[in-house]
Amino acid sequence: MVSIREVGPRDGLQNEAPVPTDAKVRLLDALSATGVRRIEAVSFVHPKAIPQMADADEVWARARKADGVRYSALVPNPRGAARALAAGFTELEVVVSASDTHNRRNLNRSTEESLAGLTELITTVHAAGATVEVIVATSFGCPYEGDIAPARVAGIVERVLGDGADRVAFGDTTGMATPRRVRELLTAVGRIPLLLHFHNTRGTGLANILTALELGVTEFDASVGGLGGCPYAPGASGNVATEEVVHMLHDMGIDTGIDLEKLLEAAALAEQITGRELPSGVLRAGPRSRLVSQ
Amino acid sequence: MVSIREVGPRDGLQNEAPVPTDAKVRLLDALSATGVRRIEAVSFVHPKAIPQMADADEVWARARKADGVRYSALVPNPRGAARALAAGFTELEVVVSASDTHNRRNLNRSTEESLAGLTELITTVHAAGATVEVIVATSFGCPYEGDIAPARVAGIVERVLGDGADRVAFGDTTGMATPRRVRELLTAVGRIPLLLHFHNTRGTGLANILTALELGVTEFDASVGGLGGCPYAPGASGNVATEEVVHMLHDMGIDTGIDLEKLLEAAALAEQITGRELPSGVLRAGPRSRLVSQ
Repeated sequence: MVSIREVGPRDGLQNEAPVPTDAKVRLLDALSATGVRRIEAVSFVHPKAIPQMADADEVWARARKADGVRYSALVPNPRGAARALAAGFTELEVVVSASDTHNRRNLNRSTEESLAGLTELITTVHAAGATVEVIVATSFGCPYEGDIAPARVAGIVERVLGDGADRVAFGDTTGMATPRRVRELLTAVGRIPLLLHFHNTRGTGLANILTALELGVTEFDASVGGLGGCPYAPGASGNVATEEVVHMLHDMGIDTGIDLEKLLEAAALAEQITGRELPSGVLRAGPRSRLVSQ
Repeated sequence: MVSIREVGPRDGLQNEAPVPTDAKVRLLDALSATGVRRIEAVSFVHPKAIPQMADADEVWARARKADGVRYSALVPNPRGAARALAAGFTELEVVVSASDTHNRRNLNRSTEESLAGLTELITTVHAAGATVEVIVATSFGCPYEGDIAPARVAGIVERVLGDGADRVAFGDTTGMATPRRVRELLTAVGRIPLLLHFHNTRGTGLANILTALELGVTEFDASVGGLGGCPYAPGASGNVATEEVVHMLHDMGIDTGIDLEKLLEAAALAEQITGRELPSGVLRAGPRSRLVSQ
């Protein structure tokens, strides 16, 4: 069993041109019906910083909360965490970047300053009965600094787990992960509660997941249709497409709980609401089991 | 060391809208300057069947033959083989499909009839001092029949090697290969002189190559820019992009002899001459070592 977290509604749509609230609710509801067990639904960020998520409260209020699905929200700071808790979320995610330069560009402070602020946020969220996942961005490389030493990432992991983080995710923020880098980083951190988040910017998405599976990782992010993009490479692919991940895993005999046909319907909806051809190969060509009629 | 055979000029352009002879020669010459050691240059097929290759003789006559590069040609039958030999090729490729239905659709005869005809072709080509590679199409699945039993492919391999074929290639004709299918087929055939040819139709291209590498395969086809397509799935990706393969291999410390920057120039040229955005992620985003200037 592999646990897929669907991040199209948040990480995907955050990197697309803004779409109407109604379309976001329809996409969330379609995904909730696929059998996926986890969905990153929205982020509670400042609307000026990320206008794509300005209607997060309304989207979440209108979306159907399906039984058996765990929904999570990304928050940038204590104020966002308070909004997420008030909205009823019990799984929160915060981001810190392994690259100091990326952290300053993205969050306007050093990695150290971000880490220092996490302790209080974790305590507050825990007091409200919710969990905190720390997403370590640029874990596999930074578009400004280049390679990031696995030891640096391992140090951040040790610190945030010590500060009470419930789980860690490694974000391949700009698609710099490769099988080699996955192997090196996983070896450096050892066995921890871990989720991996790959972008398919350079074609290695499924190869990275295959490598991580061999090393025992069982939790992955993916984005329906391959929604999303890379702010540093206009036109580049975004997150690895959920249906490509599910298609490969099911072929390997690994269950995900997801109904691929329903997922493909959700991917077609994602394509419709964004109005652009999404990069998913399985959406384009269908699963390998779909034969040409003679 | 992994040996990449660049197939963009043949398999790639054969599945694109026709381009002028001059553009084909420019692409071939650009590829010959990348350090790649093998190029599938043209096919000698009937111009009515495949108009994209109608000018094969002229393309080949005008192309620069670089030192240290092995050039090959695809031939459908003894007549094509005679043309290829007359043009000076010493490495020929012929196709037979593991799927009987696909073989009938593609070549208008059964797999058995194709195999029966191979013996004489191999003898003739060998007599002329050239080699024959047998490409087994639909080795990982057929768009009409679905899964192909690895034992059937293994039987074809045994027969053509017994008939004198110098090498075998497994063609993932419509992108149905997955890590699982690669493992199953390679296990079934054992160690033979083998080249693998993957399409990235469903996103598994690099994951398949990674699996094959682990099982000892060292020869792969790839197409610059991801040129090509899939006749059964309009809009789907074609061959795995050479620069994505090289990018992953070099990151793993595996040499290919190829200069990635020169290859990216050739990929940009491929995009220019076809006039469409090619699916290569590394062409779009650049290699992971290319940093964003601050």
